[in-house]
Amino acid sequence: MDLLKNRILQDGKCFEGGILKVDSFINHQMDPILMKAIGEEFARLFADCGVNKIMTIEASGIAPAIMAGYYMNLPVVFAKKKTPKTMENILMTKVRSFTKNREYEVIISKDFLTPDDRVLFIDDFLAYGNAALGILDLIRQAGATLVGMGFIIEKAFQEGRKDLEQTNVRVESLAIVDDLSAGKITLR
Amino acid sequence: MDLLKNRILQDGKCFEGGILKVDSFINHQMDPILMKAIGEEFARLFADCGVNKIMTIEASGIAPAIMAGYYMNLPVVFAKKKTPKTMENILMTKVRSFTKNREYEVIISKDFLTPDDRVLFIDDFLAYGNAALGILDLIRQAGATLVGMGFIIEKAFQEGRKDLEQTNVRVESLAIVDDLSAGKITLR
Repeated sequence: MDLLKNRILQDGKCFEGGILKVDSFINHQMDPILMKAIGEEFARLFADCGVNKIMTIEASGIAPAIMAGYYMNLPVVFAKKKTPKTMENILMTKVRSFTKNREYEVIISKDFLTPDDRVLFIDDFLAYGNAALGILDLIRQAGATLVGMGFIIEKAFQEGRKDLEQTNVRVESLAIVDDLSAGKITLR
Repeated sequence: MDLLKNRILQDGKCFEGGILKVDSFINHQMDPILMKAIGEEFARLFADCGVNKIMTIEASGIAPAIMAGYYMNLPVVFAKKKTPKTMENILMTKVRSFTKNREYEVIISKDFLTPDDRVLFIDDFLAYGNAALGILDLIRQAGATLVGMGFIIEKAFQEGRKDLEQTNVRVESLAIVDDLSAGKITLR
């Protein structure tokens, strides 16, 4: 996806510890035109997977997921990082965050994840794969099926793909970062 | 906006304490087709306000904001409820949440809110108006200008509009709930 790759090279910034900042167009300030193209590309990649629901996790996954949901004409559910007062009947898992260096609880209502669901998970980053594995845990608790995982940016050197591919679920990343050392972004 | 009003009457649920649950189509599971229509309507309503940036607050505001941003061809920034490790140069304010019954910090990077910005704030609910007033505080700290506020659903009986209109900023809600008592949703 050249539009995305060129934008990462142009506006992405690397920091020590394998951190890639894309907060001027993806996960703080967002470019809706780019986000729409991202949603369209996910829809194209997963068109033949029999998906009936898209899942993501708040907050940075919501924009690409809603755009993919629009193109696939499917409901989008975002898992929450806190339990709202008005929420009952939930499934819960724990996820360790790389950038925030802490563990947090992720929940979803059982009303919106059922054994009939064939789920496509969409998120902004694939790093160590912890958020994706947390979502997979929720999906298994619900008796649903995960059929695909789509990421805007994969940091290949953090090797999250290895764990995800052991689940035999299709993994697609729209841009793959092979290296961030020496302050330079190297895309595959 | 009849599409929205009919959906609220069909799928919304009321609970004691003035709570309206729309989590099957707006703020947990989301309907992307409805969300796109919502974005289009916000773009129509605020077309003549000279907006150059859309702001929202994670997480439920992101989907309507990115859709409005798409139609208006403008960048969308979401304020965050936690400070990520990789973030510096921020503005901070405090917001009291009605549904969660606690105060939380909301931040935005100074890189994405500057004195040149004429901001449209988009959110899912207008209740007491606390989130909107927090965003207004961030906008004032940045020396930017708030030119409009758009909400998917306004709970008129919680009277947030009163405080917001004192700022002389245009306030638009796509559906206004006049009453939720006796377990019945009454729309204006």
